[in-house]
Amino acid sequence: MKEKLTKALQALKHKTPLVHAITNVVTVNDCANSLLAVGASPAMCEAADEVFEFSQLAGSLYLNLGTLTKEQEMAAYLAIRGATLKGIPVILDPVACGAIPRKKATIERLGHFGRFTVIKGNLGEVKALAGLAARVRGVDSLDEGNDGLEACQSLARAYGCVVAATGKVDIVADGQRACLIENGTEMLTRITGAGCMAGALVAGFCGAYEDAFGATVAALLTMSLAGELAQETSGGELPGTFRAHLIDQLSLVDEALIEKRGRVQWL
Amino acid sequence: MKEKLTKALQALKHKTPLVHAITNVVTVNDCANSLLAVGASPAMCEAADEVFEFSQLAGSLYLNLGTLTKEQEMAAYLAIRGATLKGIPVILDPVACGAIPRKKATIERLGHFGRFTVIKGNLGEVKALAGLAARVRGVDSLDEGNDGLEACQSLARAYGCVVAATGKVDIVADGQRACLIENGTEMLTRITGAGCMAGALVAGFCGAYEDAFGATVAALLTMSLAGELAQETSGGELPGTFRAHLIDQLSLVDEALIEKRGRVQWL
Amino acid sequence: MKEKLTKALQALKHKTPLVHAITNVVTVNDCANSLLAVGASPAMCEAADEVFEFSQLAGSLYLNLGTLTKEQEMAAYLAIRGATLKGIPVILDPVACGAIPRKKATIERLGHFGRFTVIKGNLGEVKALAGLAARVRGVDSLDEGNDGLEACQSLARAYGCVVAATGKVDIVADGQRACLIENGTEMLTRITGAGCMAGALVAGFCGAYEDAFGATVAALLTMSLAGELAQETSGGELPGTFRAHLIDQLSLVDEALIEKRGRVQWL
Repeated sequence: MKEKLTKALQALKHKTPLVHAITNVVTVNDCANSLLAVGASPAMCEAADEVFEFSQLAGSLYLNLGTLTKEQEMAAYLAIRGATLKGIPVILDPVACGAIPRKKATIERLGHFGRFTVIKGNLGEVKALAGLAARVRGVDSLDEGNDGLEACQSLARAYGCVVAATGKVDIVADGQRACLIENGTEMLTRITGAGCMAGALVAGFCGAYEDAFGATVAALLTMSLAGELAQETSGGELPGTFRAHLIDQLSLVDEALIEKRGRVQWL
Repeated sequence: MKEKLTKALQALKHKTPLVHAITNVVTVNDCANSLLAVGASPAMCEAADEVFEFSQLAGSLYLNLGTLTKEQEMAAYLAIRGATLKGIPVILDPVACGAIPRKKATIERLGHFGRFTVIKGNLGEVKALAGLAARVRGVDSLDEGNDGLEACQSLARAYGCVVAATGKVDIVADGQRACLIENGTEMLTRITGAGCMAGALVAGFCGAYEDAFGATVAALLTMSLAGELAQETSGGELPGTFRAHLIDQLSLVDEALIEKRGRVQWL
Repeated sequence: MKEKLTKALQALKHKTPLVHAITNVVTVNDCANSLLAVGASPAMCEAADEVFEFSQLAGSLYLNLGTLTKEQEMAAYLAIRGATLKGIPVILDPVACGAIPRKKATIERLGHFGRFTVIKGNLGEVKALAGLAARVRGVDSLDEGNDGLEACQSLARAYGCVVAATGKVDIVADGQRACLIENGTEMLTRITGAGCMAGALVAGFCGAYEDAFGATVAALLTMSLAGELAQETSGGELPGTFRAHLIDQLSLVDEALIEKRGRVQWL
């Protein structure tokens, strides 16, 4: 199964997919730099006047609802429609959908304009979308429940898509298959943007590799491995230095590292 | 008196306050990372459709007028109303209010929707708000006058709140009490965002510690101490490296450092 | 001729020009920090309620169309009008104008409100604006044609302004004079924002030095030299560390470095 992951990484490096992103202002720079680091080509095209056409030219569409302005919301409807018309993968990052009702309402509306290929949230967000009780604080999940896999599978079946829930262990499920990614570091929770960068990487991999389940696992594993290495090279507990090293290490993740250090449990 | 400051820091580390921020695009990532570094939980929730409810769930509200869009302006009115209804502290960062008339008009309007707990600006901004002649260039204060304390006290009395003016020496006043913080480094003026991060930290501390005067002093001292240490560890005069080390050092400020190195003059 | 460049740098350091920027959310922080690093004073003032007056107070106006919101678009019309009324230099960064029709339409409209002093794009953008066939992917130019100089001169004559096209070799032309800048590093393409920072620096230099041709060459050379040095000090191929060192090195570029290491070919 790991072969899928190294193939997904090869495809990403080979194809330089154009990732069309509509994302939040807090971490938009991190998303762009992490996509560039792994070899994708990010384009933050967010204007309602531009996105319907642009979304049809890209390799994938990344929709992150973090600081969704009214103009971005309109753009998101147009972009998901354009991408869906062309069969281009759409990756949804439902930031704060457990804490803010408008996020959930927007996601429901988006579903009437197109379809999601992958929904990637933290566990609290995934549970909230799946209609389960979730423990959240603002944009953070306080959830560490054992019902994560069930929530992912339930949401995956409801939307007919891949669902990924990030946390100490990342879960990826597509309604039938599932796996756990046991790499990572707590330092990824001490900077802003790790979740968004992971979502952007999912879009990058999906833009280059057809199997969305494999692409999603490869993306989250890449993020977690880069986090582990960045913690080592940055000397442990220094969030500012860690953040710069994280981008460095994202650029260095290769097939050998995935083979050697990846801890993926296929269920 | 220093005991208040260490207690404020303890409270922050203990409570992980949720800081609701409506802030400018230039430094929003820095604000989020500096809040995370000291142990707060930032949430940049800025949509007019979201903020009235969200502001009532947070530990504090940070309003920074730096690049205020029309949608953010509407959101700011809703958010200050929500926070004020629940008695949640509101921290205003009146960026460029000396140079741009609309900023001042917006601040006056905000005062009709709720109340400010702390106003934190540079000296030029504080003087402009206090109705005194101020020397500003864009977002920068050129003011180094000796009338800073008077301006702070005057503004504090006018708004019935704590006022902080940052500069070579930071001034904090609440209409009666006042103090000077003599720590800091000129390097903080050579990157963008030091003022915004300081404002965000004030919101973080106010979200965890009831005495807004003590919380504000603790926040500005934390920023200044981290700046001093970051200058030392980054080798002096390198703004890009300094910026990463500043976040590192913010995560390391502790009670012992405040006790040992803090230079606060209580007036 | 190099004397012009060192004089432009001297003027920048001496005058601390206020650069009024309306720019994209992805790299706005990088633009601010790079301007501060070289000694300019950035002010990101983007609200339609503010810009007409503010643009008349600044040393130069930087218009970057990267993630142009509708409100920014309105602000851009007001700002270019204000700047032009006062004879203040206007620097246009026509991001993605080859891929997105609305960008080109906006640029044409902007031309009815004021005039451009410098247009700075990548080669694909310059060719698209000049009405030539261009190879672009999203925001990236895939163009390495030999017709770059011709495209620059043609566009410079059409708009009566300086035109700069960045690439492996940067080209600057004003309809009569032209030069090539042969410094730089491929690492500048592995982070987001190098093009935007270069554009912001052009605005910084134009705000301090009257000859826009010389100011533009000095700005692009400063960027390329800082890139070369940052690649050396950051250990080669690490984009996250490179990015921090780039800001460091921007602050260190001086006249001696320009004299010694600058490779400018005057045509």
